[in-house]
Amino acid sequence: MRAIVTDGEDSVWEEQRERPEPDSGEALVKIRAVGICGSDIGLIHGEGPPWTRYPLVPGHEICAEVIELGDGVDSLSVGDRVSLHGFVYCGTCTPCREGRYYQCDDLREIGFTIDGGYREYAAFPEETLRPLEDDITDLEATQIDSAGCTLHGLQRVETSFTDTAAVLGPGSLGLFGVQLLKARGVEDIVLTGTRQERLEVGEQYGATRTINVNEEDPVEAIREYTDGDGVDLCVETAGAGDVVNTCLKATKKRGSVVLTGVFDGKREIDPNDIVAKELKVVGGVTAAHAVDEVAELFQRDTLSVEGIVTHEFDLEEYESALETVMNREDGVIKAVLRP
Amino acid sequence: MRAIVTDGEDSVWEEQRERPEPDSGEALVKIRAVGICGSDIGLIHGEGPPWTRYPLVPGHEICAEVIELGDGVDSLSVGDRVSLHGFVYCGTCTPCREGRYYQCDDLREIGFTIDGGYREYAAFPEETLRPLEDDITDLEATQIDSAGCTLHGLQRVETSFTDTAAVLGPGSLGLFGVQLLKARGVEDIVLTGTRQERLEVGEQYGATRTINVNEEDPVEAIREYTDGDGVDLCVETAGAGDVVNTCLKATKKRGSVVLTGVFDGKREIDPNDIVAKELKVVGGVTAAHAVDEVAELFQRDTLSVEGIVTHEFDLEEYESALETVMNREDGVIKAVLRP
Amino acid sequence: MRAIVTDGEDSVWEEQRERPEPDSGEALVKIRAVGICGSDIGLIHGEGPPWTRYPLVPGHEICAEVIELGDGVDSLSVGDRVSLHGFVYCGTCTPCREGRYYQCDDLREIGFTIDGGYREYAAFPEETLRPLEDDITDLEATQIDSAGCTLHGLQRVETSFTDTAAVLGPGSLGLFGVQLLKARGVEDIVLTGTRQERLEVGEQYGATRTINVNEEDPVEAIREYTDGDGVDLCVETAGAGDVVNTCLKATKKRGSVVLTGVFDGKREIDPNDIVAKELKVVGGVTAAHAVDEVAELFQRDTLSVEGIVTHEFDLEEYESALETVMNREDGVIKAVLRP
Amino acid sequence: MRAIVTDGEDSVWEEQRERPEPDSGEALVKIRAVGICGSDIGLIHGEGPPWTRYPLVPGHEICAEVIELGDGVDSLSVGDRVSLHGFVYCGTCTPCREGRYYQCDDLREIGFTIDGGYREYAAFPEETLRPLEDDITDLEATQIDSAGCTLHGLQRVETSFTDTAAVLGPGSLGLFGVQLLKARGVEDIVLTGTRQERLEVGEQYGATRTINVNEEDPVEAIREYTDGDGVDLCVETAGAGDVVNTCLKATKKRGSVVLTGVFDGKREIDPNDIVAKELKVVGGVTAAHAVDEVAELFQRDTLSVEGIVTHEFDLEEYESALETVMNREDGVIKAVLRP
Ligand SMILES: NC(=O)c1ccc[n+]([C@@H]2O[C@H](COP(=O)([O-])OP(=O)(O)OC[C@H]3O[C@@H](n4cnc5c(N)ncnc54)[C@H](OP(=O)(O)O)[C@@H]3O)[C@@H](O)[C@H]2O)c1
Ligand SMILES: NC(=O)c1ccc[n+]([C@@H]2O[C@H](COP(=O)([O-])OP(=O)(O)OC[C@H]3O[C@@H](n4cnc5c(N)ncnc54)[C@H](OP(=O)(O)O)[C@@H]3O)[C@@H](O)[C@H]2O)c1
Ligand SMILES: NC(=O)c1ccc[n+]([C@@H]2O[C@H](COP(=O)([O-])OP(=O)(O)OC[C@H]3O[C@@H](n4cnc5c(N)ncnc54)[C@H](OP(=O)(O)O)[C@@H]3O)[C@@H](O)[C@H]2O)c1
Ligand SMILES: NC(=O)c1ccc[n+]([C@@H]2O[C@H](COP(=O)([O-])OP(=O)(O)OC[C@H]3O[C@@H](n4cnc5c(N)ncnc54)[C@H](OP(=O)(O)O)[C@@H]3O)[C@@H](O)[C@H]2O)c1
Ligand SMILES: [Zn+2]
Ligand SMILES: [Zn+2]
Ligand SMILES: [Zn+2]
Ligand SMILES: [Zn+2]
Repeated sequence: MRAIVTDGEDSVWEEQRERPEPDSGEALVKIRAVGICGSDIGLIHGEGPPWTRYPLVPGHEICAEVIELGDGVDSLSVGDRVSLHGFVYCGTCTPCREGRYYQCDDLREIGFTIDGGYREYAAFPEETLRPLEDDITDLEATQIDSAGCTLHGLQRVETSFTDTAAVLGPGSLGLFGVQLLKARGVEDIVLTGTRQERLEVGEQYGATRTINVNEEDPVEAIREYTDGDGVDLCVETAGAGDVVNTCLKATKKRGSVVLTGVFDGKREIDPNDIVAKELKVVGGVTAAHAVDEVAELFQRDTLSVEGIVTHEFDLEEYESALETVMNREDGVIKAVLRP
Repeated sequence: MRAIVTDGEDSVWEEQRERPEPDSGEALVKIRAVGICGSDIGLIHGEGPPWTRYPLVPGHEICAEVIELGDGVDSLSVGDRVSLHGFVYCGTCTPCREGRYYQCDDLREIGFTIDGGYREYAAFPEETLRPLEDDITDLEATQIDSAGCTLHGLQRVETSFTDTAAVLGPGSLGLFGVQLLKARGVEDIVLTGTRQERLEVGEQYGATRTINVNEEDPVEAIREYTDGDGVDLCVETAGAGDVVNTCLKATKKRGSVVLTGVFDGKREIDPNDIVAKELKVVGGVTAAHAVDEVAELFQRDTLSVEGIVTHEFDLEEYESALETVMNREDGVIKAVLRP
Repeated sequence: MRAIVTDGEDSVWEEQRERPEPDSGEALVKIRAVGICGSDIGLIHGEGPPWTRYPLVPGHEICAEVIELGDGVDSLSVGDRVSLHGFVYCGTCTPCREGRYYQCDDLREIGFTIDGGYREYAAFPEETLRPLEDDITDLEATQIDSAGCTLHGLQRVETSFTDTAAVLGPGSLGLFGVQLLKARGVEDIVLTGTRQERLEVGEQYGATRTINVNEEDPVEAIREYTDGDGVDLCVETAGAGDVVNTCLKATKKRGSVVLTGVFDGKREIDPNDIVAKELKVVGGVTAAHAVDEVAELFQRDTLSVEGIVTHEFDLEEYESALETVMNREDGVIKAVLRP
Repeated sequence: MRAIVTDGEDSVWEEQRERPEPDSGEALVKIRAVGICGSDIGLIHGEGPPWTRYPLVPGHEICAEVIELGDGVDSLSVGDRVSLHGFVYCGTCTPCREGRYYQCDDLREIGFTIDGGYREYAAFPEETLRPLEDDITDLEATQIDSAGCTLHGLQRVETSFTDTAAVLGPGSLGLFGVQLLKARGVEDIVLTGTRQERLEVGEQYGATRTINVNEEDPVEAIREYTDGDGVDLCVETAGAGDVVNTCLKATKKRGSVVLTGVFDGKREIDPNDIVAKELKVVGGVTAAHAVDEVAELFQRDTLSVEGIVTHEFDLEEYESALETVMNREDGVIKAVLRP
């Protein structure tokens, strides 16, 4: 079978491999679709989390079909469509016991430590596979992880029906963020970004004010939009530019800031913004604890990938797929590989 | 009577004024002692909060004695010793209704908007004066506000008996911070600072590890002290140097950071520290909601000003008092004026 | 002008009174509509809260129009339509400072301590009157308080998109509860009650399962509906029958229970339900902190009074209005008086 | 080796058994001491949790010594003294992933599902054994579980330095409760009970007011002690009598109630107490998440078993030990078996 492999030293190539056999406790799946996450590109350049191991088959935004069961697997059946939540953890360390299995002292993660989904077949541990309801399409299934990251961050803050929120960064995380805020009853949503076409997708999902940061100063624009007060909640989903500073300046007294972006380095902030306004700033990483909620929302059609998953490629077209994403060609937001 | 006045343009002078009369709802008090807060110095240089009004008598860390009651004052008696909690607020705006009277849309604050305690007598609204228990000394009474600021910040985070905490900045806020953490049952406390004599005061209050940032890298030292994990909680009480960055680097996964310092400008941070470790960073300002708790702790001798209030000056010596504080002369930590 | 008065000893009568003059800080309003709350009936029988004073004009679910301003009133204009949030509080006691003005040590409440809205004109303190957006009808305005009570209770618990909730009691509080849960993104909602027609109103608002407790055992029915697990959240809005016990039995491990009903006396529970399942049971009283959110939802048409406000009466018909409500005649849910 | 066994049908007997062999992932331990928990007595009468399996060796309050390691055990060494935290869980179900492993969908618990510590030797899974610091005595080690149950309950509520708390029930859970509250900085603690000698132990640990419910009405006494307000926090550790009602009546507005007792059946409460005062009532079960904190406090001598562990028996004296506990003979509070 075909597998796409990287060495973390800027190379990525295709290999011909044996189809894996499911061990006891594993299921053999056929990959139906796998999203290209920004972090997959980082992996190719050696920028994975500490638990990354090379050479590696990237890919964790996986929709697959169960085709064979290893011994002792009873929560899955052959033929099940599944999505991946690829954390393999010890279950007994302090983070695990406290419900932070994604921060396990002995974490292994599919697509980072363990070969992921850029291939035709894979054998994954039973507990990393979640059977999909019929109403969830393959493309939606690949985006459970992406939308889940935003929701997992949002789970750390409360919202009210009168809140004004800002989402900074109209990629997949941000565009799901707009939808998730609406699903919670927040209707007044500012979206900032750098590209008009992405902001327009946000508008279709109900953003009430969009700001192109290349044309307007986002802090001034948000302050003006909120009569000088600032927003109740700022959700950062860009990982680029001056967005952290924007969050701190544009959020009102006792407001909340959720950071989810992965940044290329340091940023300048004024700590007085946090002190004098008594802000609460929290980080969120991974889709942990949000997976079932996101799946439920896709089922309800409260969440949609329309306009977000913009491109599909055959697995063998991986090079042009990766290039399209890296260079933001052709209006791409999220691209999906089809093995 | 004698009053010390500033114009916010670097000048501060003594004036002879009429002793005020208490209006209805006010009490006339004789100031017994008033602490010199860092923000009083800021006021002289025009760096007060937006609700500052000049010319102004600074001073909010007040211990006083009630000597006359205006009409309708029934919660106080002549002869009561009192401390000040000097917020005058509307009571009906959204922040007020939500319990954030110190963020009132129409806030006036004694020592900032309204003449404060650098004078012999003052008439203050009844509700800003808190009768003092006998066990609380005058000097302790002046520090209810200071210790209250630290506690108010700490109220935004939970602690556990197994926590390791770091306090960054051994001024009054930090040294009360060490004591407050111990009072909550946190015993493993790192204290950082720039001056050996202040760190030693912290050791006397139970800091288990002190770090002079001029001699050791605090991030490395804290990491080493915590076997690489970082602390559960970082309490910033310096408002200077690279402390925000230290907080973010030295706090462990899912740990908390409380910022209370007033900074002179921007700082560089790596936002990935917040995201990847899922930190929670909160700001705290004023002693609101912490005043009664701090008074209780002074009464119990769980909190002490020993080694913290290092200097007392007569009110007329205000110039040398302010200079001592500004220039950190003579091992001063907190100085108090005695009108 | 006409005013309806009670002595709390089962009598209620009509009086002819002078139209009041607005004091300084007050606005004179013409009452446009006033809902009949269950507690108004209680008042007639002497069952008001401790701060009740007789003789009394009941009525706090008020929609009115400003017709004259007392001195110093600047947040209102003549002609404004307003709703009432009738708490008059000190602003400086501990509950007030902590944001619980509705638990003020010195509370006075319009319709309980102070004459309420069962009359043609009233002079109310400025801060008890909230200008109404045009999109909010008079009938909706009277229900801001009622829906607000449910939301205020709900503010004490978190919900997730995958939650199953139960609402026990299909009166106005419960039927707004169904709508509020949906507005937060909870779609799987069980509603229990005693009358088919009320349960049908709930179904129209999206209750996914209704249970008539006269026909089915609600605990068994809820357990069956939830595959034996119980619901994540139980919202009690009946104040009658065995609903507290139902809450404790029908809620799953680590689930939450919100109680809002006013009960006629004691109930039997099994405390082991709380201990062994580690439930969280909270009470909620008044619409405090929920008023603006509810108004926002009426504006959005996310909340509706359709099928809930079932009856309107002229003020002079107060006797048949009260009887209709007391005897649950004619399918009444909520009746409104029109002075 | 000697083992004490019950059939859950009121019989308990001694058996001679083979010393177990440690399986892979297990350690063989010699039991040094095992506390008699009230639930052990319940087990004999068939009143265990749903996951109980008979015939059973009871005993979970275990201090032991590691004498042999099974394959793959690397967190323990032969000679380690250990305490038991006996939950065996799946690690992947929703409760497990959320940090509630003690509510695992597939829970097995040592001393309930799996043979416990009323025997000389046992082979337990590595992750259920916690190495003991030298400063923790054997008797203290047996009480980590008991004190942990109280702390686990307390972890669900916040306390402040000005709080007045009540602890209802002066058994081991309650007497540790008094100590734990003090360790958190709560000094004003009421303790209620039925036996003078137990209340006196509480006084030695700092209870500021004790109430013998056979002599005084606890609600009236607490109200009087708190000037009519009630306590901020009520911790129920009796599982008997009218304590739930006492909690609801004796707790002040917006106060908190923690229930930990196991009750023999229903109780009457007035739900209006919860609603009108907006109480928060939570249950707590097991020592989960509190084990390390309690161990830390025993190490610090902040927690003590003095006056609480009143009796020690050889394992073969199990009959008189159980009788002493059941009949509250000889001033017993907690008895420990020494195999
Ligand atoms: N926390 C987690 O678990 C998690 C999981 C997945 C991804 N992430 C991170 O989350 C971030 C978003 O992911 P994504 O897949 O949605 O990425 P994406 O497609 O790169 O989206 C980011 C968007 O933000 C825009 N942007 C850049 N600078 C901005 C600024 N100053 N103001 C407003 N918008 C700005 C980008 O514009 P351009 O097109 O001009 O660059 C882009 O449209 C990334 O940093 C990613 O690494 C985190
Ligand atoms: N949040 C509030 O409500 C509130 C209220 C009052 C005060 N404050 C602020 O809180 C801060 C502390 O107040 P304070 O009265 O305790 O002030 P302080 O006496 O100035 O204490 C600050 C201490 O931090 C030390 N420091 C400076 N840089 C440091 C670094 N990189 N690492 C560790 N320590 C460092 C200072 O050393 P040096 O002696 O070398 O400068 C000094 O010892 C100030 O910024 C003040 O403006 C806030
Ligand atoms: N917390 C607050 O601030 C606040 C504010 C306002 C009202 N309240 C209280 O909240 C409760 C609801 O108010 P409301 O105006 O909506 O009252 P309502 O119209 O009396 O509604 C209560 C509903 O619950 C039903 N019910 C009675 N026993 C039941 C049972 N065992 N299971 C399920 N449903 C049952 C009633 O049926 P029947 O028609 O057969 O009686 C009625 O339909 C009342 O107790 C009221 O006093 C509280
Ligand atoms: N939540 C958990 O995880 C957990 C764990 C272990 C135990 N428990 C339960 O927690 C409770 C306490 O355990 P324990 O080992 O400390 O038990 P214990 O030794 O039985 O202590 C309970 C104490 O409460 C007293 N009491 C009875 N009625 C009272 C009343 N009305 N007011 C005040 N005190 C009263 C008892 O007095 P008498 O001597 O007169 O009976 C006894 O002194 C038990 O119900 C136990 O089953 C729970
Ligand atoms: Zn782990
Ligand atoms: Zn205000
Ligand atoms: Zn008040
Ligand atoms: Zn489990």
